[in-house]
Amino acid sequence: MSSKTAVSPWASVDDRQKVRLDKREAVLQAAAQIFNEKGFQSTNLDEVAERLNVTKPTLYYYVRSKDEILFECVKIGLTMLQESIQEVGAQGGTALDKLKAAMRRYAEIVTMDFGQCVIRVGEDPLPLESQLKLRRIKAVIDAEFRQLIEQGIAEGTIKPCDPKIAAFTIAGTLSWIARWYRPSGPLKPDEIADQCIALLLTGLCPPTKAE
Amino acid sequence: MSSKTAVSPWASVDDRQKVRLDKREAVLQAAAQIFNEKGFQSTNLDEVAERLNVTKPTLYYYVRSKDEILFECVKIGLTMLQESIQEVGAQGGTALDKLKAAMRRYAEIVTMDFGQCVIRVGEDPLPLESQLKLRRIKAVIDAEFRQLIEQGIAEGTIKPCDPKIAAFTIAGTLSWIARWYRPSGPLKPDEIADQCIALLLTGLCPPTKAE
Repeated sequence: MSSKTAVSPWASVDDRQKVRLDKREAVLQAAAQIFNEKGFQSTNLDEVAERLNVTKPTLYYYVRSKDEILFECVKIGLTMLQESIQEVGAQGGTALDKLKAAMRRYAEIVTMDFGQCVIRVGEDPLPLESQLKLRRIKAVIDAEFRQLIEQGIAEGTIKPCDPKIAAFTIAGTLSWIARWYRPSGPLKPDEIADQCIALLLTGLCPPTKAE
Repeated sequence: MSSKTAVSPWASVDDRQKVRLDKREAVLQAAAQIFNEKGFQSTNLDEVAERLNVTKPTLYYYVRSKDEILFECVKIGLTMLQESIQEVGAQGGTALDKLKAAMRRYAEIVTMDFGQCVIRVGEDPLPLESQLKLRRIKAVIDAEFRQLIEQGIAEGTIKPCDPKIAAFTIAGTLSWIARWYRPSGPLKPDEIADQCIALLLTGLCPPTKAE
């Protein structure tokens, strides 16, 4: 008898679980891309399957419905936004430094598949209960931005203003990138982020002409 | 025989045409309100009829389908935006004066039913041909904003910048108002417009802190 430990030709439970999660994410990402291109209503799960070279029944091994796919896509995108602003908050620097870093990450994320799906499709096509779950994450992100703005006003790096309006101005400008950005366009995401952030921080007018 | 001219108890053709157009607009506006509240897919034309105290067959005397209603709502909203910027362009003043006036009208229109429908619902749920017609109006609006920005840069009232990014920054901030504005909120549309425009023109930072 050999003393060698038998090596199972089957993957371990952990490995299989990892493969399953990776495949599920691939399904979600392919769907997000097609939602972003064509809109949620016009997307057929057959197209998602086709893009992944599998059959539609295979998709249903990973997800239950088109609604579940959209819910997960928007949740992943919002979670990326939320985590990025929390990571930035944990770094050192002034509130303005943190706000700049948070804006830059936000601009990058909304050019990516899941982030773009948050803005281009969003939670509106989903049942009310799902909408409310996703809006709770949005409210947290909004609150984090307002807090950074309030801290910036307190430290004197941001002008006195209504933090709510300032947070919506930032979110509006940066979210809009998801609507007009095309990977084939002349500007890369980081160049777009730089220019939008510069306009948000210093405005359209030379200081003497603004009033 | 009396010499008095007989007065028809029926309205004139012109009057009837006007009544018909007013009623059609009322159908479109009621639908826009419900689309904005609930989303396009979740809206049933029964609800539109109910809000107007008529039956659904009565609606079909004015419009052919839910798609036609959305197309018309978005077209009216976009036409309001387009006409407002053209009116502003025809006035005197610097390019910056015109840009400020155009931004103010844009912010007001996106808090109104048809304007809000442009942003909250938009052309995405419609067939491709309808989408393209509406996107042509959007392209005209975008071009008008870019032109004002270019003129402002030339006259020195706007800082040298990429007019495309500046136009998207303005459109993003102002369009976003349609997403978060609630008539029951603490700020009226003109106050929101004032604050957003001030942030866009002079930025979030005091001049010395921006870099």
